[in-house]
Amino acid sequence: MDEARDRGLTLNPRYDDNGLITAVVTDVATGDLLMVAHMNAQALALTIETGFAHFWSRSRRSLWKKGETSGHMLQVRDLRIDCDQDALWIKAVPAGPTCHTGARSCFFRRIGPDGLSRVDEAG
Amino acid sequence: MDEARDRGLTLNPRYDDNGLITAVVTDVATGDLLMVAHMNAQALALTIETGFAHFWSRSRRSLWKKGETSGHMLQVRDLRIDCDQDALWIKAVPAGPTCHTGARSCFFRRIGPDGLSRVDEAG
Repeated sequence: MDEARDRGLTLNPRYDDNGLITAVVTDVATGDLLMVAHMNAQALALTIETGFAHFWSRSRRSLWKKGETSGHMLQVRDLRIDCDQDALWIKAVPAGPTCHTGARSCFFRRIGPDGLSRVDEAG
Repeated sequence: MDEARDRGLTLNPRYDDNGLITAVVTDVATGDLLMVAHMNAQALALTIETGFAHFWSRSRRSLWKKGETSGHMLQVRDLRIDCDQDALWIKAVPAGPTCHTGARSCFFRRIGPDGLSRVDEAG
């Protein structure tokens, strides 16, 4: 435990070995989890600067403004960091479905005793 | 993109090189993000089996039932997986403060233009 990092008021993100931090996006209106992605320092700076969520795509190895091509941007209403500063929480207003499958949230499947089941979009 | 993994109904978690998957916990009552942690296959199995959140502690390199020592367990009400099956969403009833600092949520600090500020616990 690092007292200054855990309780202090200095932003000091703990990036992993790849220079990334986990970013969790919830819908400010519903509280639903929309997506989990990663940011590098530049994505975080751009997110703060522009008010729109930017990420680092690990598969494409490139900076990525969410909604750049789909138009489904995430307007940031609140940005928080956790105790050990290795995760970010973005409360956002989504301009459309967040998931590349067209679902409102990437978390559209429930894990049950018999595998996965689709969750009602309103659920 | 892997169509079967992204849209199918077979649970097929995509563990990282360390055998871990990101797990995001929200409060089922408020929608607030409580914590972000990691699970290995055993932690996920125990979570499903017992209905209480188990994680893998990367710092202690051990399996960990949340609340084991503090009593602040997380009772799972809903468990979901995202499109590419590399993140889990747990909606839980927390038995007490989730954060080791005593805060209700690990995300008790807001990132603003002038650094961090503490967020009202009710916020």
